Amino acid sequence: MNTPTPSPAPGVRLSGTTQLYPVVGSPVAQVQAPLLYNPWFAKNGVDAAVVALEIHPEDYAVALPALLRMANVRGAMVTIPHKVATVALLDDCSTAVRIAGACNAVRRQADGRLYGDLFDGAGFLRATQAHGFAPRGAACLVVGCGGAGAAIAAALAQAGVARLGLSDTRSGQAHALAQRLHAHFVAPRFEVCPADPQGFDLVVNATPLGMAEDDPLPLAVERLSPTTLVAEIVMKRPITALVAAARARGCRTQLGREMLDAQLPLYLDFFGLLP
Amino acid sequence: MNTPTPSPAPGVRLSGTTQLYPVVGSPVAQVQAPLLYNPWFAKNGVDAAVVALEIHPEDYAVALPALLRMANVRGAMVTIPHKVATVALLDDCSTAVRIAGACNAVRRQADGRLYGDLFDGAGFLRATQAHGFAPRGAACLVVGCGGAGAAIAAALAQAGVARLGLSDTRSGQAHALAQRLHAHFVAPRFEVCPADPQGFDLVVNATPLGMAEDDPLPLAVERLSPTTLVAEIVMKRPITALVAAARARGCRTQLGREMLDAQLPLYLDFFGLLP
Repeated sequence: MNTPTPSPAPGVRLSGTTQLYPVVGSPVAQVQAPLLYNPWFAKNGVDAAVVALEIHPEDYAVALPALLRMANVRGAMVTIPHKVATVALLDDCSTAVRIAGACNAVRRQADGRLYGDLFDGAGFLRATQAHGFAPRGAACLVVGCGGAGAAIAAALAQAGVARLGLSDTRSGQAHALAQRLHAHFVAPRFEVCPADPQGFDLVVNATPLGMAEDDPLPLAVERLSPTTLVAEIVMKRPITALVAAARARGCRTQLGREMLDAQLPLYLDFFGLLP
Repeated sequence: MNTPTPSPAPGVRLSGTTQLYPVVGSPVAQVQAPLLYNPWFAKNGVDAAVVALEIHPEDYAVALPALLRMANVRGAMVTIPHKVATVALLDDCSTAVRIAGACNAVRRQADGRLYGDLFDGAGFLRATQAHGFAPRGAACLVVGCGGAGAAIAAALAQAGVARLGLSDTRSGQAHALAQRLHAHFVAPRFEVCPADPQGFDLVVNATPLGMAEDDPLPLAVERLSPTTLVAEIVMKRPITALVAAARARGCRTQLGREMLDAQLPLYLDFFGLLP
């Protein structure tokens, strides 16, 4: 599969026949999708374009369905702060959406119904595999049980991990996620636990800690083993304090950006744009 | 003024900061605006893009306002079949919109209100000037008193023509237009008249006759004088039977496409995009 990569390509040739795939958020200035997809479309001769559209939260419930009724808008990518609000606008959705309560990809089906998916978890899993991580039978700790943590936990459960630790300073969040996972998956052993990485093959920071320079570490790094893969989802700074500490202890690390990049072929497939 | 021209430029670089100016219609495959504006934006370093959006008529009253509430969509270009329906969605509009009952340019003002304009007439007038036509004091015949004819008649009246003939096989249309023009302009002499070009400096075909190959001629070409400028608004074929007949009689001719091309700087100015 010809995976998209950022490129300095000059741009996309827009015409009346171009299919548009908006990325909807607020704000959108920081959105990378147009820069990633459009050079790929140009290179592969696909008459499509990703355009960023900034929709105010109070307009979203009207604007998203209106957009997806336009004949040449067959799908949209969803980013902050609309991932949760999108779920209520769908006619049908994937298990990942149900568990995480969030959606980052919507398409209009042939019958006009809106179908939603969430690629955070599947993208995360793809990225770990590039680091040699094999999920089947592994022990994994997800720290942070909000939308991103839920998506990652669901993908790990679906991929056949043996043990899944769920940690959150708000312990109600962790218990609620364990319950939602139980309803969909029987296989892994779910444990609500502290942010202690000892004994885990994969440890994920799915909290926002690391976005600010002086944030505390999200987990007890001094208990990391060098055989553990430490994955970060914070993207605001490439090397967070957690990544630096994990590397100092000899761990392999996965950066926040990798989860995003690994979603690109998933989106293309979802929109039916892969050759 | 650096007027846009079609160019084989590779395309526009879309990013999260790009301002979008949709051209809304149904269908849109034939729409030329993205091909005309985007190379100009690229060349002039303007971080903006024109994208075609196909909106079904039954969705339009919801979709257009929703689109124009998006933070990075400050304006839209309107094409068939939405020009008339747009008027009801505006908070304020130009005299051209009031007279023609149609709108082909909308922008969101700083206070959020939607303001509409119609550049068919002004674009037409710009194009005639490129043929050396001076409107002040001239005698003009507009054949066809629908939306396009009304827009052109209003622009001619505003530009100070002395005599304005209005012709339509549906004579009620011509009388109604004369009445609307009277309400806004005192200067020219308006006459509802047959499609007889004799004695006019400028004759305009603003009917759809000429779109089909076997359409009858819209006016009595055998009564054309070689000093008359004959302007066509039909764009489907560049050289209509009227244009061919007028040229055979030695007349200067203006093609349908020229009215459209001359609107480009007007749109850019309306959207505040001229350097």
